[in-house]
Amino acid sequence: MAKKPKNAISPTREEDYPEWYQQVIKAADLAEASPVRGCMVIKPWGMAIWENMQRVLDGMFKDSGHENAYFPLLIPLSFMEKEAEHVEGFAKECAVVTHHRLEPGPDGGLIPAPSAKLEEPLIIRPTSETIIGSMYAKWVQSYRDLPIKINQWCNVVRWELRPRLFLRTTEFLWQEGHTAHATEEEAWEETRYILDLYADFAENWMAMPVIKGEKTAGERFPGAVSTLTIEAMMQDRKALQAGTSHFLGQNFSKAQDIKFQDQNGQEVFAWTTSWGVSTRLVGALLMTHSDDDGLVLPPRLAPKHVALLPIYRDDQQRSEVLEFCDRLRNELQDQEFADGKIQVLIDDRDLRGGEKKWQLIKRGIPLVAEIGPRDIAENVVALSRRDQGKLGSVPRDEFVANATGRLDEIQQSLLDGALQLREQNTRTIDNANEFRDFFTPANDKKPEIHGGFAVSHFCEDPAVDEILKQLKVTIRCLPLGEENEPGTCIFTGKPSTGSAVFGKSY
Amino acid sequence: MAKKPKNAISPTREEDYPEWYQQVIKAADLAEASPVRGCMVIKPWGMAIWENMQRVLDGMFKDSGHENAYFPLLIPLSFMEKEAEHVEGFAKECAVVTHHRLEPGPDGGLIPAPSAKLEEPLIIRPTSETIIGSMYAKWVQSYRDLPIKINQWCNVVRWELRPRLFLRTTEFLWQEGHTAHATEEEAWEETRYILDLYADFAENWMAMPVIKGEKTAGERFPGAVSTLTIEAMMQDRKALQAGTSHFLGQNFSKAQDIKFQDQNGQEVFAWTTSWGVSTRLVGALLMTHSDDDGLVLPPRLAPKHVALLPIYRDDQQRSEVLEFCDRLRNELQDQEFADGKIQVLIDDRDLRGGEKKWQLIKRGIPLVAEIGPRDIAENVVALSRRDQGKLGSVPRDEFVANATGRLDEIQQSLLDGALQLREQNTRTIDNANEFRDFFTPANDKKPEIHGGFAVSHFCEDPAVDEILKQLKVTIRCLPLGEENEPGTCIFTGKPSTGSAVFGKSY
Repeated sequence: MAKKPKNAISPTREEDYPEWYQQVIKAADLAEASPVRGCMVIKPWGMAIWENMQRVLDGMFKDSGHENAYFPLLIPLSFMEKEAEHVEGFAKECAVVTHHRLEPGPDGGLIPAPSAKLEEPLIIRPTSETIIGSMYAKWVQSYRDLPIKINQWCNVVRWELRPRLFLRTTEFLWQEGHTAHATEEEAWEETRYILDLYADFAENWMAMPVIKGEKTAGERFPGAVSTLTIEAMMQDRKALQAGTSHFLGQNFSKAQDIKFQDQNGQEVFAWTTSWGVSTRLVGALLMTHSDDDGLVLPPRLAPKHVALLPIYRDDQQRSEVLEFCDRLRNELQDQEFADGKIQVLIDDRDLRGGEKKWQLIKRGIPLVAEIGPRDIAENVVALSRRDQGKLGSVPRDEFVANATGRLDEIQQSLLDGALQLREQNTRTIDNANEFRDFFTPANDKKPEIHGGFAVSHFCEDPAVDEILKQLKVTIRCLPLGEENEPGTCIFTGKPSTGSAVFGKSY
Repeated sequence: MAKKPKNAISPTREEDYPEWYQQVIKAADLAEASPVRGCMVIKPWGMAIWENMQRVLDGMFKDSGHENAYFPLLIPLSFMEKEAEHVEGFAKECAVVTHHRLEPGPDGGLIPAPSAKLEEPLIIRPTSETIIGSMYAKWVQSYRDLPIKINQWCNVVRWELRPRLFLRTTEFLWQEGHTAHATEEEAWEETRYILDLYADFAENWMAMPVIKGEKTAGERFPGAVSTLTIEAMMQDRKALQAGTSHFLGQNFSKAQDIKFQDQNGQEVFAWTTSWGVSTRLVGALLMTHSDDDGLVLPPRLAPKHVALLPIYRDDQQRSEVLEFCDRLRNELQDQEFADGKIQVLIDDRDLRGGEKKWQLIKRGIPLVAEIGPRDIAENVVALSRRDQGKLGSVPRDEFVANATGRLDEIQQSLLDGALQLREQNTRTIDNANEFRDFFTPANDKKPEIHGGFAVSHFCEDPAVDEILKQLKVTIRCLPLGEENEPGTCIFTGKPSTGSAVFGKSY
C-alpha cells in the first residue's frame, strides 16, 4: 500500500488558495478549460452537481407559479440598443455574429462568405431582457394577461478576459427569470420573493449561509432600478455574489413598449423583474466546503451519497463481497433523502483500493463504506464521513438504519461550519484605519488569506470610492432585514444613511 | 352560449395541411416565430412537452451508462475544417462570430469593434463532433479510458432559409450523444442500441410508430460511415426523420487524433458514434396525432393528464364546486402514471365555460371533466376523452378508479391509429409507372394529401436520382430487421441489392 499523503490537494488553502481551487476542480474531475478561450468543458461529475441544482431550483420556481419557456440565443443589435444603460453595461463583452455562411477563401481555407454578411449583426445573448421583452410587448394587451412569470434555462456569453472555471467564464449556463406585472407593488413582491427563494436554496441545499442585501447604484444590473443580491463568504474570506434579483421598474417596458389596458381602461406600462443564478454556484459550493483533501459535497446536492468500496483478493471473495454490496445498495436506495432516494455508487473499478478511496474522497462523496470478507464475517462496514474521516467499524444494520440521519448530520455540520467561518470573519468597523488594516494582508507577496466582511457606515463620495479602489474592496450590499440606522461615514465623517457590508470579492 | 363551431381549427387537414399545422401550434400556444429570422420562441405549453421528452430520454440514457456533460457553444473554424466531408456538409449554414466587443460607430449606433476582431472566427456549433472530439483526444490514452459515453442537452444553430416551427428552425434544442470505443464491434453495438432506444421512445412514449433503417450514401450525416434512422409517417403521409444514430468509424478519431494504447500496447484509433433527437419531435408528435380540433397529446407525454373544469353561477356554488374539485385532484394526483403521478389542472380562470373547454381541447389534454352543482348532487363528472369526445356522466368514484386505465387506453388508441394510417398508406411497388402515380397528386394546385411510403427495389444510378428529384421523393431508408432480398430496380431494370422505403419528406 502506498503511504497516505499528508493531503490529497497540493497546494493547501493556506499555501495558495487560488491554485488550491484549480487543483480541487482537477482532482474531482469537475471541469476543465477548453480550446476556446474562456470557455469551459463541464465534465460529468460537475454536470451532475449542476443538474441537481437545476432540478431543485426548477421545482421551487414551478411551485411558485413560474413556467419554463425558451427564447432565441441571438439578439438583433438594435434590440440591445433600446435601453441605454443596459447596452452600455454589456457592449464591451458581446460576441457578435456577422455572417451566416462559410465559403472557400483565396488560401483554400474557409472564410465567412462576404455575400452572407448579415444586414444587422446579431449578438449572442449576454442576458435576455431585450429579446424576451420584445415578445412580452406582443403578449401583453390587457391586465388580464398579467402577471407573466417565465423562466428559461440556457447558455449565455459574456466575453471574459480573465476567465476562471465556474466563477468567470465566457460562456456559462444559468437560469434567467423574467416577469411582468400590473403594479409596482407586485413586481417588488416578486423581486423579494425570488431573493428569499435563492437564500433558501443557498442555505438549505448548498449549506451556504448568505447575506441578503441591496446593491448600491454602482453595482446595479445595467438598466435596473434596484438589484437585490445574496452574498456568501468563501473560505479565503472573500465575498461571492451568488444570485441576483432585479426590480426593473418600467425601464425595460418603456424601452420595449410593454404596455396594457388596466382595469380602468388606461394604457400603462408594465412593471418587470429579472433574476438569475448560474454555474458559478458550483464554484461557490466548492469554495464554501472543500478542504485540503479535495471536494466536500453537501449531501442534499451530491450526485452520489454513499460509495461502497468492495475489497477482495480473489474471484471467490469478489462474488461474496459484491453480493453483500448489492444487497446493501438496494436497501439504501429504497430510502428517501432530499428530494429523491439515497444514491449509491459501488466502486468496483480495476484499481488499487487506496487509489479508489482517495478518488472518492477527492470527489466529495459524503459517506464511504469499505467492505471486505472480514467485515462481512462480522456483519459490519468500515465507514468514513467526508467531513470527519474514519468512523471505524459500524454494524451493517445500524449503517442502513442511520444512513439518512448521518447525511442530515453532515449537511447541518457543513452549514454550521460555514456560518461559523463567516461570523468569525465579520467585523463591525467604525474607523478608517481599522478598516485599512482589516483589508491589508501582512505579506503582500502571496495571495494570503485575510480580511472578511466589514460592516461600516459610509457615504457616496469620490474620496470613499478612491480608498476602496486602493484596497481592492467593494461594497457588497446594504443588508436587508435589520433596521439600518443612520450614522457617520468612517472615511469622510459625513452623515451616513446606513451601514453596508464591505469585502474583497470574486 | 356561442354556437359550437364545426371544427376548432381552420383550415382542416384536408383543406390545407401545412396551414393546419401552423394553426394547431397557435391554438395550443406551443411556439411562435421570433423577431430573429428563423428562430422560434418555445412557449410554456410547448416547453413542458419538450421537458417531458427530455426527462424520459435522459433517464433512458443514464440507465444505459451514459453521463451528461457540457461542451462550448463556440467552435474554432480550424476544428470544423479537420474532417473534410463534415465541414462541406455544414459550411453553408454556419453562423460565424467574428468580433467580441461593440463600440460606438460613426453614426452613433454600435458596431462590432474593429480592434476586437477575432484572429480566428468562431462557429456557433451546428453539431459538436469536432469540439467534443478534441477533448476526447486528450482524455483517451489507454484502453482503460474507454468507452466514453457522454450526452449533452443544448442548443445548436444551422442557418435555415425556409424555417418552419419545430420542424426546421435556425436555432433548435436537442441532445447529442458522443461515444468512443476500443473496438469497431462495440461502436456498432452502441449505434444500434441507441437506434432501438429512440424507436422505443417514439413508439411507447410518443405513440408514434417508426421504421428503423439505414440511410443511403447521399443521405448520410457528413463524415459518418453509416447513419441509422427512425422514420415516421405524418398524417399527410409524408415521412419525417425523427432521430439518427451515426456510426462514425475512425473518420473523426483520425481527423482529431483520438488514439490509445490497446491491451497489446499497440497505438490505435478509437471508434466513435454520435446520435441525436431534437425539438423537431414536438412537431412530429403534433402531426402524428392532432386533429381538426387541435392538438392531441399522448397521455404519457402530456404536461397535464386531466383537466377539471368547475362550472358555477355564484360564490356559494363556486366554493362548493372548487372544494369538490380539490378533493378530486388530490385523489387523482396520488396515482402513479407513466414515470410520475397523474397531473391535474383545475381551470378556474375567469372565462366563459365554453371558451375554456375549447382551449383545453385545443391544447390536447387527454381527459376533461366538467363539474357543476348538479354533477356534485349526483356524484358524477361530465367526462370527455380528447380522442373520442363526450363520454357523458361518469360516477365520480369510477372516474378516479379508472383514470390511469383510461389514460393507458388513449395512449394505445393513438398508437393503433397511427400504425393503421401508416399501414394503409404503405405499398410495395414493383413498376415505375405505379410509383409515379403513387407520388403524383390528382390536383397540382394545392398541397393535396397523397402518396405515402413506397417499398421498391432500386439501384444507384443518376437516372434514378433524376426521377426521384422530379417527383420530389427521397429514399427514406433501407429498412433493418427483415431480410432484404435482391431484386430488380423498378426504374432501370438493373439488379438491386435490396428494396428501400421511399417517400416525400419534411
